[in-house]
Amino acid sequence: MRGWVVRLRQHCRRCVHGGGSALRGGYLHNEEAGVQAWQAACFGLWQRGLAGVQVAAGFDFKVTAVDGKARAGVISTPRGQVRTPAFMPVGTAATVKAMLPESVAATGADIVLGNTYHLMLRPTAERVARLGGLHAFMNWQRPILTDSGGFQVMSLGALRKVSEDGVRFKSHIDGAVHHLTPERSMEIQRLLGSDIVMAFDECPALPATEAVVAETMRRSMRWAERSRAAFGERPGHALFGIMQGGVTRALREESAAALCATGFEGYAIGGLAVGEGQEAMLGVLEYAPGLLPADRPRYLMGVGKPDDIVGAVERGIDMMDCVLPSRSGRTGQAFTRHGVVNIKNARHCDDPRPLDEACTCPACRSYSRAYLHHVYRSGEIIAAMLLTWHNLHYYQELMSGLRAAIAAGQLAAFVRDFHAQRAAGDIAPC
Amino acid sequence: MRGWVVRLRQHCRRCVHGGGSALRGGYLHNEEAGVQAWQAACFGLWQRGLAGVQVAAGFDFKVTAVDGKARAGVISTPRGQVRTPAFMPVGTAATVKAMLPESVAATGADIVLGNTYHLMLRPTAERVARLGGLHAFMNWQRPILTDSGGFQVMSLGALRKVSEDGVRFKSHIDGAVHHLTPERSMEIQRLLGSDIVMAFDECPALPATEAVVAETMRRSMRWAERSRAAFGERPGHALFGIMQGGVTRALREESAAALCATGFEGYAIGGLAVGEGQEAMLGVLEYAPGLLPADRPRYLMGVGKPDDIVGAVERGIDMMDCVLPSRSGRTGQAFTRHGVVNIKNARHCDDPRPLDEACTCPACRSYSRAYLHHVYRSGEIIAAMLLTWHNLHYYQELMSGLRAAIAAGQLAAFVRDFHAQRAAGDIAPC
Repeated sequence: MRGWVVRLRQHCRRCVHGGGSALRGGYLHNEEAGVQAWQAACFGLWQRGLAGVQVAAGFDFKVTAVDGKARAGVISTPRGQVRTPAFMPVGTAATVKAMLPESVAATGADIVLGNTYHLMLRPTAERVARLGGLHAFMNWQRPILTDSGGFQVMSLGALRKVSEDGVRFKSHIDGAVHHLTPERSMEIQRLLGSDIVMAFDECPALPATEAVVAETMRRSMRWAERSRAAFGERPGHALFGIMQGGVTRALREESAAALCATGFEGYAIGGLAVGEGQEAMLGVLEYAPGLLPADRPRYLMGVGKPDDIVGAVERGIDMMDCVLPSRSGRTGQAFTRHGVVNIKNARHCDDPRPLDEACTCPACRSYSRAYLHHVYRSGEIIAAMLLTWHNLHYYQELMSGLRAAIAAGQLAAFVRDFHAQRAAGDIAPC
Repeated sequence: MRGWVVRLRQHCRRCVHGGGSALRGGYLHNEEAGVQAWQAACFGLWQRGLAGVQVAAGFDFKVTAVDGKARAGVISTPRGQVRTPAFMPVGTAATVKAMLPESVAATGADIVLGNTYHLMLRPTAERVARLGGLHAFMNWQRPILTDSGGFQVMSLGALRKVSEDGVRFKSHIDGAVHHLTPERSMEIQRLLGSDIVMAFDECPALPATEAVVAETMRRSMRWAERSRAAFGERPGHALFGIMQGGVTRALREESAAALCATGFEGYAIGGLAVGEGQEAMLGVLEYAPGLLPADRPRYLMGVGKPDDIVGAVERGIDMMDCVLPSRSGRTGQAFTRHGVVNIKNARHCDDPRPLDEACTCPACRSYSRAYLHHVYRSGEIIAAMLLTWHNLHYYQELMSGLRAAIAAGQLAAFVRDFHAQRAAGDIAPC
């Protein structure tokens, strides 16, 4: 087995915590990151009392219930289980913004997403590897999915140049030139220690001509094959292929067939939520999940708003990610059962009620709308902390509700109730 | 008794949580804030399960140990005890910046400071009162000390005008004209629900001519008398007078005599840490605490750096406050036993070690210097969260060490060790 292995043979001589009893008589070895990671790994594991824990091999997905097209299930990884349908908070630069990782876990998140593009530029994948991998670095011991960098590199516009080999681009931080290929993306995600690795792909912004969508999709399928080859054999880690093809069914079918021929541990639907609108997106989701193997997780990338999530789960999606709950938390928008609350609004300045009296998150348990309004208007960091926590809690509660409804065969009723509560709107001003 | 009283007689009919079992059959009444606070108070107490708790009357201070001029003791208030010497984190705008209140408490803080100037402008004292007072508003149930607004109004420069009556000034937020007098300051601090109220004073920036220092000190003493009269009888709440007089011993003596003649529950030393330098400050502290009653707490305002704190405690100071640990946390400076670590510095980029391996704060338990460096450089909010937590933890550990040393009669050895560790400097780069 590769990956993190703890062998209780001899002491890590480079360890700064040489006297740490948890490691006495043992040493740590990451066969992938190499010996230079020993010290940092030792440090990271020592801190969290994980030394001596043998990491189990294997990546697995089981569907445990089906309701219409919707599925509930469990992804098993050596880092822990991910209950599906799952929402993955985005931890772009090795942090879910404004949250401590234990708070992210407290919201009910089983997995977070890291961004290859950001991490390769700063602090760099090699540095993260030397420091023991992304889990130890950011203090998140549960599963991590990393994107491939493709999507974010594409959004650089004039700063990037695409060829068959890959993408050459300039860093938005210091202007340095970088070259990202399927092989380099696999190497970066291996160095980060990601549990679920995404194939390197090209995602055109919509609207685009069908010719552009077809061309980039076919290149992405060739890149997916190269990603598969470069990924190699890594038990306990998964590689997901990414379907492209815009809103054109024939292209989606061609893409799905190519991915299935290559074979992946999971399949993502890319190229949506990039400007096509909810109706077009849900249109693609009417058929796209059905083009992918039923026994593998299906991940809709970059989605979305709460009603996008419900619509996607209804159509057979198992995993999603989006910056919306965390970004909205920093811009004063809170998601509740009744829709969106704009905490900036003066109507809240004297309101002693919580955002949602049924919510059990810290922001709702211990603070009034008036307080959240005040700290947001005052530019206080606690506003971002509390609103982000609330939003991530809301998203995870939504996922939990969806999973329970699917398990009970009550998804239709759940969805009806979801829409009815939103239609009723926020509580009246007091 | 005045202040918060819970009477289990009838249900609060205006309560948004009418069905809350904790309040069934009871109602809340704040005799000071008035009936308009019922709803908010009910909400606040309901949230924290405090309903039914009768708040005890009384404010008290007991010296429990003396070592040289240094004292250890306990301030008792209806909101809880404050172990002295105490460091009070600053919660300017109803939040200790970048911290949740439970995290502030976890660092070991018994009391926080709120700023009258900021709170009177936004969200306003009247609004805080309607919402149940500052403790409920900011979710901090332990004691709160509020300053009088005087110091911050003085720092507005051209935006303010001082007369015998008080200070007229323009808000830095919206330019609105406000009038702050001893009477209005007492009213604001009463509306906020502060446990320790500071007399309204005028603090000249040093260097200033002795004539200016004398004139402002004498006006401050007249204002202290007016503060005492306006404060009235409020069992369970304390009013502290503030000594002025710059670095002139005769003026300090005159000020202390005036304050003692009026009589206060505690005495502050103001007008230091305003530009006179550490040597001059410690020079005043050689005699100033001894001018104040030994059986009352002595509070040195706005101090300071760790070595200022140690020097002040050695000279008989019981309480201090400063924005330094929280502000430094947001600007990448961490305080450790070995001095100041500038986490921005590139030497930390690959360092797998914590800020201080002996520190038990979350930043040191779970994160490397490399991580803190990365998130600080990336402008991530978690950098402010972790570094502020670390700094406040360091300050509270320092206070805890000082209290234990005084109790054991070992303060001299503690102070020697404190300076020796700092002289050794930060750990060598790895």
